Amino acid sequence: MVQQDQLSATFAALADPTRRAILARLAEGECPVTELARPFDMSLPAVSKHLRVLERAGLIARGREAQWRPCRIDAGPLKGVADWTDRYRTLWEKRLDRLDKYLQQITVKKEKHHGRKPRRK
Amino acid sequence: MVQQDQLSATFAALADPTRRAILARLAEGECPVTELARPFDMSLPAVSKHLRVLERAGLIARGREAQWRPCRIDAGPLKGVADWTDRYRTLWEKRLDRLDKYLQQITVKKEKHHGRKPRRK
Repeated sequence: MVQQDQLSATFAALADPTRRAILARLAEGECPVTELARPFDMSLPAVSKHLRVLERAGLIARGREAQWRPCRIDAGPLKGVADWTDRYRTLWEKRLDRLDKYLQQITVKKEKHHGRKPRRK
Repeated sequence: MVQQDQLSATFAALADPTRRAILARLAEGECPVTELARPFDMSLPAVSKHLRVLERAGLIARGREAQWRPCRIDAGPLKGVADWTDRYRTLWEKRLDRLDKYLQQITVKKEKHHGRKPRRK
């Protein structure tokens, strides 16, 4: 159950566009909290709250330097997300295949309706 | 923002082991709510609540037959999760490489300490 709880914590932490934007910024390199807060038009305490959620989920780590506590991303838990999601890959690929076939069928029908020779791949 | 909200809804729906187990069951084929509820030792209303979260996130669809309303998985939103997560793949792969190198180093040090010839790949 430990693995599942980690996965739940990761998914919950990612269920917020600001937290995902923070991770996207940190993927470019570590930076201090004040710099992270800048693009979000949010108070420092509000950003700190998001950082605590990310830190608890193990998605970021924070330096101990009192002055600027740099944050850095830890992408480890995202591997768990990718592994979990990958089990369903064949399902959405099948779905896209079906959609593709359906669109081909209606294109052929439309072209027949307009008296044109149906295009073939 | 629509895309981001969809992604937040998907992540929030996946942040629960019971909901992930329901999806795993539905990946094998559609089934009625009563059958879905069986392995979880949960009341039917509790399972229905989870199903509503999954349905709102577009991860499942439910039939309209009054008697047994079969549920089926819709893996479409999981492609969004996979695409988002994939941007971070190089980061966790680098992390695993570093871990691998570190483990190799301490193995070599240990073997030197015990007077053995270090193994090489």
